[in-house]
Amino acid sequence: MSVEDVAMPSQPGLPPTLVEAAVKAALAEDLGLAGDITTDAIIAADASASARIAARHAGVIAGLDLAEAAFRALDPGVRVVRRVAEGGVVFPGQVVADIEGRARALLSAERVALNFLGRLSGIATLTRAYADAIAGTGARICCTRKTTPGLRAFEKYAVRCGGGANHRFGLYDAVLIKDNHIAAAGGVGEAIRLARQGIGHLVKIEVEIDKLAQLEEALRHPIDAVLLDNMGLDDLRRAVAMVTRHSGRIVIEASGGVTLGTVRAIAEAGVHAISVGALTHSAPVLDLGLDF
Amino acid sequence: MSVEDVAMPSQPGLPPTLVEAAVKAALAEDLGLAGDITTDAIIAADASASARIAARHAGVIAGLDLAEAAFRALDPGVRVVRRVAEGGVVFPGQVVADIEGRARALLSAERVALNFLGRLSGIATLTRAYADAIAGTGARICCTRKTTPGLRAFEKYAVRCGGGANHRFGLYDAVLIKDNHIAAAGGVGEAIRLARQGIGHLVKIEVEIDKLAQLEEALRHPIDAVLLDNMGLDDLRRAVAMVTRHSGRIVIEASGGVTLGTVRAIAEAGVHAISVGALTHSAPVLDLGLDF
Amino acid sequence: MSVEDVAMPSQPGLPPTLVEAAVKAALAEDLGLAGDITTDAIIAADASASARIAARHAGVIAGLDLAEAAFRALDPGVRVVRRVAEGGVVFPGQVVADIEGRARALLSAERVALNFLGRLSGIATLTRAYADAIAGTGARICCTRKTTPGLRAFEKYAVRCGGGANHRFGLYDAVLIKDNHIAAAGGVGEAIRLARQGIGHLVKIEVEIDKLAQLEEALRHPIDAVLLDNMGLDDLRRAVAMVTRHSGRIVIEASGGVTLGTVRAIAEAGVHAISVGALTHSAPVLDLGLDF
Amino acid sequence: MSVEDVAMPSQPGLPPTLVEAAVKAALAEDLGLAGDITTDAIIAADASASARIAARHAGVIAGLDLAEAAFRALDPGVRVVRRVAEGGVVFPGQVVADIEGRARALLSAERVALNFLGRLSGIATLTRAYADAIAGTGARICCTRKTTPGLRAFEKYAVRCGGGANHRFGLYDAVLIKDNHIAAAGGVGEAIRLARQGIGHLVKIEVEIDKLAQLEEALRHPIDAVLLDNMGLDDLRRAVAMVTRHSGRIVIEASGGVTLGTVRAIAEAGVHAISVGALTHSAPVLDLGLDF
Amino acid sequence: MSVEDVAMPSQPGLPPTLVEAAVKAALAEDLGLAGDITTDAIIAADASASARIAARHAGVIAGLDLAEAAFRALDPGVRVVRRVAEGGVVFPGQVVADIEGRARALLSAERVALNFLGRLSGIATLTRAYADAIAGTGARICCTRKTTPGLRAFEKYAVRCGGGANHRFGLYDAVLIKDNHIAAAGGVGEAIRLARQGIGHLVKIEVEIDKLAQLEEALRHPIDAVLLDNMGLDDLRRAVAMVTRHSGRIVIEASGGVTLGTVRAIAEAGVHAISVGALTHSAPVLDLGLDF
Amino acid sequence: MSVEDVAMPSQPGLPPTLVEAAVKAALAEDLGLAGDITTDAIIAADASASARIAARHAGVIAGLDLAEAAFRALDPGVRVVRRVAEGGVVFPGQVVADIEGRARALLSAERVALNFLGRLSGIATLTRAYADAIAGTGARICCTRKTTPGLRAFEKYAVRCGGGANHRFGLYDAVLIKDNHIAAAGGVGEAIRLARQGIGHLVKIEVEIDKLAQLEEALRHPIDAVLLDNMGLDDLRRAVAMVTRHSGRIVIEASGGVTLGTVRAIAEAGVHAISVGALTHSAPVLDLGLDF
Repeated sequence: MSVEDVAMPSQPGLPPTLVEAAVKAALAEDLGLAGDITTDAIIAADASASARIAARHAGVIAGLDLAEAAFRALDPGVRVVRRVAEGGVVFPGQVVADIEGRARALLSAERVALNFLGRLSGIATLTRAYADAIAGTGARICCTRKTTPGLRAFEKYAVRCGGGANHRFGLYDAVLIKDNHIAAAGGVGEAIRLARQGIGHLVKIEVEIDKLAQLEEALRHPIDAVLLDNMGLDDLRRAVAMVTRHSGRIVIEASGGVTLGTVRAIAEAGVHAISVGALTHSAPVLDLGLDF
Repeated sequence: MSVEDVAMPSQPGLPPTLVEAAVKAALAEDLGLAGDITTDAIIAADASASARIAARHAGVIAGLDLAEAAFRALDPGVRVVRRVAEGGVVFPGQVVADIEGRARALLSAERVALNFLGRLSGIATLTRAYADAIAGTGARICCTRKTTPGLRAFEKYAVRCGGGANHRFGLYDAVLIKDNHIAAAGGVGEAIRLARQGIGHLVKIEVEIDKLAQLEEALRHPIDAVLLDNMGLDDLRRAVAMVTRHSGRIVIEASGGVTLGTVRAIAEAGVHAISVGALTHSAPVLDLGLDF
Repeated sequence: MSVEDVAMPSQPGLPPTLVEAAVKAALAEDLGLAGDITTDAIIAADASASARIAARHAGVIAGLDLAEAAFRALDPGVRVVRRVAEGGVVFPGQVVADIEGRARALLSAERVALNFLGRLSGIATLTRAYADAIAGTGARICCTRKTTPGLRAFEKYAVRCGGGANHRFGLYDAVLIKDNHIAAAGGVGEAIRLARQGIGHLVKIEVEIDKLAQLEEALRHPIDAVLLDNMGLDDLRRAVAMVTRHSGRIVIEASGGVTLGTVRAIAEAGVHAISVGALTHSAPVLDLGLDF
Repeated sequence: MSVEDVAMPSQPGLPPTLVEAAVKAALAEDLGLAGDITTDAIIAADASASARIAARHAGVIAGLDLAEAAFRALDPGVRVVRRVAEGGVVFPGQVVADIEGRARALLSAERVALNFLGRLSGIATLTRAYADAIAGTGARICCTRKTTPGLRAFEKYAVRCGGGANHRFGLYDAVLIKDNHIAAAGGVGEAIRLARQGIGHLVKIEVEIDKLAQLEEALRHPIDAVLLDNMGLDDLRRAVAMVTRHSGRIVIEASGGVTLGTVRAIAEAGVHAISVGALTHSAPVLDLGLDF
Repeated sequence: MSVEDVAMPSQPGLPPTLVEAAVKAALAEDLGLAGDITTDAIIAADASASARIAARHAGVIAGLDLAEAAFRALDPGVRVVRRVAEGGVVFPGQVVADIEGRARALLSAERVALNFLGRLSGIATLTRAYADAIAGTGARICCTRKTTPGLRAFEKYAVRCGGGANHRFGLYDAVLIKDNHIAAAGGVGEAIRLARQGIGHLVKIEVEIDKLAQLEEALRHPIDAVLLDNMGLDDLRRAVAMVTRHSGRIVIEASGGVTLGTVRAIAEAGVHAISVGALTHSAPVLDLGLDF
Repeated sequence: MSVEDVAMPSQPGLPPTLVEAAVKAALAEDLGLAGDITTDAIIAADASASARIAARHAGVIAGLDLAEAAFRALDPGVRVVRRVAEGGVVFPGQVVADIEGRARALLSAERVALNFLGRLSGIATLTRAYADAIAGTGARICCTRKTTPGLRAFEKYAVRCGGGANHRFGLYDAVLIKDNHIAAAGGVGEAIRLARQGIGHLVKIEVEIDKLAQLEEALRHPIDAVLLDNMGLDDLRRAVAMVTRHSGRIVIEASGGVTLGTVRAIAEAGVHAISVGALTHSAPVLDLGLDF
């Protein structure tokens, strides 16, 4: 598979206003008040250098905008040539990007650049593994709100780079009715009615379902999606049948206990989306290095 | 082991000024401009509720200040009773904290609280696993600068909660001379001389060593620590012997390819510190839940 | 009508994290570096005072959280008793809130408190006028993204207080396909296909329609809502009929050239939502005063 | 009247440090964490486009720096050619600026650019109407502190673009003694004495006057300006005569109940300045569009 | 002189919104990511302590709000009893404030509290020395814009605590016409005319004068103040006579080469204000200590 | 001595991320909401100018990055040619830098640029005086944490430009055990043990010593440095002998009551470092001017 093959048809959007702020905050965290005291003491201010970011393990790349911004923040004249597109697959030893600029900037920004790139590529890589595991089933892999505080925009972007789709970005952009909401409202119908009354017409409503009995009741009300949480495969299949029989337009999502070993069977049960918290809360970093 | 047993003799310090800012930013990220549209539409503004944070898996707790601050930010009158101290071990089902307050606040802050607590507890748990693996050897487990951008203060704190120690907090608080610095200076002695000249007398100098020949040269100069990177066990033992013969006051640190399977042998080679990037870049989250 | 009558069944949510930041920024803007030089020179630091916010014109109140936060920021011990709930109707001379605290704080925060409260109440009042004009038609009044930079969360909240509903909060929480998108994609079907592929399953898709011919084509593709922009009443009615015949679940929204004089006829054409930019971009302030 | 005619002799100053921060905050508000999901899904990342900002109604332009900064923030290479200067008059259909750049940037920044430009141009337009209404009288139109929280610098700038002048920017840059100050001090003379003692020699003192009797007393003390609030025309004329007889150097300002219908008569009563809160708190937006 | 004697009749105003932000930033600067590692390792988290701020040298106190806020930021329950009012004189050994709270908080906030208090008290002390030197002359001591970046509000407040008055707070609150402005305008009259046209009626105009000839010309135009820069005593006296003869309402300010040795003679030349850059740019700190 | 002679062999590092933020904040402080109202009213927007920064007194230059950033923030096209390197010595009348750009930008940024440059150069100049006074003794001059809140990074950098060295940057990067810590721990040995246990292996431990008896006890424990506070010369010499006899690797620092008159004798007592709070808390500004 060539790099071009895996590139997104249209690059998933990452608001540029977020990149600069995050990179500056990360550099401030690493440089403190004294800066890179090793490099500043040893490397001449005008020395230049070339380096390359290379993959140590196979994976999917995400976060080059952030890595590039880290070098650029310390050397506005740095030249970065990307050898892999966002969402591209890399193999051990493969060059991800070539970088030329002031030696101090390259050394001082290295860790921040790799911390962003490695973490996001780790998420994209794990997402791709899940996405590949259900290839051909018609289902999609989704992330959750179990993201790293402060990095949600970037982690949800990395999920898209890995071939996944995004669930809610926050508590604000879709309604997800859970047990406690239903209990407080005194029933799923009343909860849906209150929610629909409080929100705009461009907001969807999803209801979390633990048991088939709940599903039956929920389907009597106007909803856009159901989240089947922690159901066994048999119940999943029954739930899919119930929903499909009721309406072809309700999205069916499964969550809970999803692993690379179980995800295909879940997808084959007929759900449209499978959300996996581990994509963002437990993905190991992709091992990348900066070689001078 | 009781909770009291595992509590730190004196709680590791977490600057309070950082906690509030991080929690507010995370809440802003999750609430956006519209807030928790599900909860606000369904739950009455004056309803109150009780909940408890409980462990789903065994692990070490870190980050209760952040979790508590999340609930308090949305309900200044919330009551939180901690059932486990920072650094305490928990078992599946064990209650970590009891929480009472406004129902809306508990529901809307839940995810932010758990995202912080689960992530930091995951780091503390993995750190404890490494620390236990080398118990009795006299060596210590250290973190690296491979932390999540924006969360370094918290992640390094979690390492301390797990019984580990902190390496540099950034590029600013200690000198670490690597290959590129030595090459630019024209030799390890010149690099050390330049570094010592540029820094204050309360800053330590560590030199990264890949081969025994480098070590021999480095020891001819006044340094505080050596970082033996990616050496085999035989070379590690030889390096320890060389350093010890030379001076009893140079700290010996090992890094590279450290796993739970290899860490004890590395510790038994006689090093004082073993740094493990995975503590912060790849620790899986500790599974915790909020039960109403 | 008593205050209780007009109170919202459940108060529309305003993220508390936003209120404090906005009020502090507004106070900083008004106090500068020297503070309220008139008051500080003339009023003793320990003098206390009582005042009341009173309506000069009839209207709907929105923004009491912000007003109260302004006084509290300058005097943490201030006592504020609200005489009207958010969304409540007031008549000329009616007391909105009683305030007791340090005299300096009341005088120095007065303008910031009234600037927020007057502006948001102005929006709520205009929204209520539109909402009342279409009462009984089954349609809802919506805002747009034509809000004051920096105040969107508050202005959209004020629309809810006035009995309106919110359209998109930003470019991020729903898809709205316009002419330029359709032209770039090479057709409405392709635009919808690309959008659906790029977004999550909890995001709705709306298509803006200028002419009936476009509508016919759009309805051949899976969409959640149509925005009929600047259509005459006859075309509106035809469009409503076309959509309804096609599917009962597509939301029909009208926009463009909506005034208090035309809005009822538009609603009676059968649309579900009518969006009015003037609610937020041109609402006159509600005249309120602080009387000592 | 040509564009050149209406341009300010020297462009009124708008601190450039404020523009960038306000525009970035507004873009962050509109783009959120996911960005412009419609445009990013449909428009290719490298597509370019041309567009023009055109007036839909007649008015006075203010805020081009902010509009231009919005496009530039999303595309540093954008080309903007202004066809009207700040403070210039436009007629329906007239082009305000031509814009060329990346299509995604133009579409995603459009609303933020127009929200700033339309709002400030609305203020400039209303200011110009008031200024024109009193042309030849020698009086000037002033704004107040009844501005939108967060936008005061821009709104006061827009007033200058419309041919008006600025009253105080905040509580910090001039003394305005009101009823409550006089009551607390125990008399207007004592209030003036305390104020003068507490402030620097480059700060002016204005006293608000409701009745002619107060004016008489105030004139016995050293003041720089009087604000005649809510006086009838007869009293206004008498007050002007009293002040002028007393000293030729005291500025006379009128406020309260000023409309386009009454403003000329007030000016002809002989005051130097007329302050109008509506300029900033109730100006309708100027209708502008971005045409591709 | 007792403490009560020197206290300000009404405390000079310091916007409370500025204090908290400045103190938090200073604590963040001193605590970094790791916090007070000495104190956190040695002092128990629940230990309490008493301490007192005492003067080591005589001087005038300014900045207690900031010092108190520093302790409170680390221990919300801290008790601070002030033994001296702002602007009060202290003698060596005198207690300024008693403090009781958590031992960690007292130790960790000590330096930030003293850095603010010592610096501002140093400014107040130097100001008082200048003010005392001209006592009885009717002239006032003023500061300039030569302040520490970021601390202007506090330093100008300290000048007021020391019995001085404030000159402009920035470039925004008064007009000061200098040589370059006059040259660019083509004459002092034209410069004044342009300035008056561009500003509001509550802004004063001061003209900087180097030579008597310039003064003569300046007095022909409507100005509020003259700044006589670097003139000898003879010229100063002549200038004062010229201005006084012309009008009794123009403020006469002297600046340049002012020392404690020369300031009285300058005052006795008849000027109203003497501005001294050294008050804020070169005042030595007042030596204060925290004794446990 | 030529400028080249005094330039640092490798420029001391100043994190570029800090410079821009500090300069923007300082400009915001000086420009407020209205900007430079004098310059904007009088100087044409497109006028250009040349100016030069010149020394009025002899001294050492530090802070050119900040000065240059101030001009650049208001005119991105400004050209600045430095005639002296950071750390270079200047004599009265000597040109420090030539500046060409928009006249408005040069006038409006002048004070901010000089406030930074004058203050930091004042610190560098005083540091150089101390450093010269002990030339040849082998000791180094150090700063303390008695810095201006918000400017620590810049002031410690200025100390390096003046030939001094930095002590701790904050409470976070080295352990300094004082009386209160020892008392709380119940002895110096226990305090050192607790500190060592709580910190990483790259952090040094220094103990503050008031009396020789304390020193004896401290030397029995593993420490990196001693701070001899306020000792007489005889005790200093004895302390140096005690430490040297004990170990050749413990850094000996003296502090307290250090003046230009006493510093050489202290250095000749054999200490390695002398810390001087006055470098940052009481250095008079270096007098610099901007000549057009």
